[in-house]
Amino acid sequence: MYNLTVKSSHKNELIDITDKINKLALEHGKNKSACLVFVPHTTAAVIINENADPDVKVDILLGVNHLVPDYMQFKHMEGNSDAHIKASLLGSSEIIPLQAGRLTLGTWQGVFFAEFDGPRSRTVLISFI
Amino acid sequence: MYNLTVKSSHKNELIDITDKINKLALEHGKNKSACLVFVPHTTAAVIINENADPDVKVDILLGVNHLVPDYMQFKHMEGNSDAHIKASLLGSSEIIPLQAGRLTLGTWQGVFFAEFDGPRSRTVLISFI
Amino acid sequence: MYNLTVKSSHKNELIDITDKINKLALEHGKNKSACLVFVPHTTAAVIINENADPDVKVDILLGVNHLVPDYMQFKHMEGNSDAHIKASLLGSSEIIPLQAGRLTLGTWQGVFFAEFDGPRSRTVLISFI
Repeated sequence: MYNLTVKSSHKNELIDITDKINKLALEHGKNKSACLVFVPHTTAAVIINENADPDVKVDILLGVNHLVPDYMQFKHMEGNSDAHIKASLLGSSEIIPLQAGRLTLGTWQGVFFAEFDGPRSRTVLISFI
Repeated sequence: MYNLTVKSSHKNELIDITDKINKLALEHGKNKSACLVFVPHTTAAVIINENADPDVKVDILLGVNHLVPDYMQFKHMEGNSDAHIKASLLGSSEIIPLQAGRLTLGTWQGVFFAEFDGPRSRTVLISFI
Repeated sequence: MYNLTVKSSHKNELIDITDKINKLALEHGKNKSACLVFVPHTTAAVIINENADPDVKVDILLGVNHLVPDYMQFKHMEGNSDAHIKASLLGSSEIIPLQAGRLTLGTWQGVFFAEFDGPRSRTVLISFI
């Protein structure tokens, strides 16, 4: 298992981690079937989406923030319940098939760390199966 | 790894691919632990839900379209940001335990390709782990 | 593959199953890479989120019920389409890396069975890969 460190700069932010995962896969995934990307945090997630047009990132955050507005009446005293809900909607993990140590992502796909309670320093776990 | 081709007929559509995956699992999953279903597209997803009453499909699409209406003010110039958001909400992959080459789906469960920017010809990757 | 039985008491409920999975992992996951948690039901899901402050559970259910209100005009005659939609939004599975038979969950993370059509007796499948 390998650890990536990701530093976020905003409360809500999508950070492209595709290159870092590809590098690990080439080094350690040669004889493996899949790459598991796991986020060990409760107010962050991982998604796979387009990393060509940067406006897609903007729109995904717009859509997710529209779904879970922070003005809702939440009980959790830390005041970041919107982030917990967004994390569970998008999910803590992604798993991507490998072929000869390469992620079989589609042409337009990238892997993004999804921060919903930043800015923070975060960890992402990468495991080859 | 195996490729399935899926042809969608509508912008938003759920297409049952359970039988195709079961067939591959019986041929190639005998000594494996799990079946990974991966969608290498950024405006489509894969879900597991009921494939008995076809109205469930209708209602899931109704619910998802209610969550991400296409009238929102998006920036991405292709005009399909709703599809990107829906794809990330539902997710690019599903992973299902195998027993003796059979998917251990529940009685009412089926695997659906979720199209949100059709009609198109699409690919689904199937990998046994 | 191992089966857990989970009994829910409410229509919508998050039930912490972390300890039960940890116990199975210590017994059967020593030489494995990941733990797959799979829900073979179409109106329930599995999520990973905070199990420290119990208000987080309350707020996640509040947020999810806000997203998929049961007053929507659904077609499925059983009247539980909201549950089917919530199940697909949160997902049928989680996969967590293992190290020496231990789930590599973050400090605040727990695994929750997410009931959306209870009360019922349910099954969760646990597979080590």
